[in-house]
Order: sequence, then structure tokens, then C-alpha cells
Amino acid sequence: ADVAAGKAKAAACGGCHGADGIATNPAYPNLAGQHAQYLVAAMKAYKTGARDHAVMKAMVSSLSDEDMENIAAYYESLKK
Amino acid sequence: ADVAAGKAKAAACGGCHGADGIATNPAYPNLAGQHAQYLVAAMKAYKTGARDHAVMKAMVSSLSDEDMENIAAYYESLKK
Repeated sequence: ADVAAGKAKAAACGGCHGADGIATNPAYPNLAGQHAQYLVAAMKAYKTGARDHAVMKAMVSSLSDEDMENIAAYYESLKK
Repeated sequence: ADVAAGKAKAAACGGCHGADGIATNPAYPNLAGQHAQYLVAAMKAYKTGARDHAVMKAMVSSLSDEDMENIAAYYESLKK
């Protein structure tokens, strides 16, 4: 996975999850240091609707599997 | 919320999420230091099926709202 490419794609995620993966609004999960494998599975679940969440579905709808792997690798790389 | 009560209830969660909230299997999310408000919302989504996940649905099915708040407070209290 390409952490730098993931960082670029993750710019859109920072609005809710924090620029550094620490969400300032406690309604949203921190992503910094989270397992990449889990993050990919979560993004795919939002895309398919297995996780029913309108905002997350919209956010991930245009992401390829590779994009998701890169974004997940970026968040995993951040300090918790 | 009652962190000690949450810790007791969270014993069942540790099999996948780690006794200290750090999941050794990267398929599962770390919960240590996660926002409690988010964790409660996630547990409720598994209970209602808004998040479609058989194992998590089974795990949370017997939890009351108070149990979820206590468990979430416990994980939030752990060091990331």
C-alpha cells in the first residue's frame, strides 16, 4: 500500500476524523493507529451497505479497493 | 457511566478486541482510547442491524443501553 497516496486521498476524511486521525467530535471514531485490515473492511462495508451510513457511503463510493488500502495504510501509520 | 462495571462486562469483548483494547488480530479494531460516544453508537448499530455483522450482533444482543455506556466508558479510559 502507498501511504503517501493514502494521505492525499484521506484529506476528505479529516473533516470528521481529524487531520491527524484523532476526531475532535466524539461522535466520530479516531482512526490513528487503527489496524489497516479492519479499516479496509469497514470502508467496504459502508460501500456495500452492510454498514448503513449515508455519509460514509457517499464518502467511500468513489474509492477503489486500492484507494481504500492506501487510506487505511496511512491511518495505521499515524501515532495513536 | 460506570467504568468498573464496563470492565467486567467487557471481558467477553477481549477475545477479539484484546484484554487491553488492543486487538492482536488486525481484522478487529483496537478499542482502547476510542471515543465512548462512537462506541455506543457502533454497538447500537450492531444490535439493530444497521451494521450487519453476525458475531457483533450476538455479542451485543443482551446488552442494555447502560451496559453499552459502561463498556464504552471503560474502553475510552484505556491508554491508546
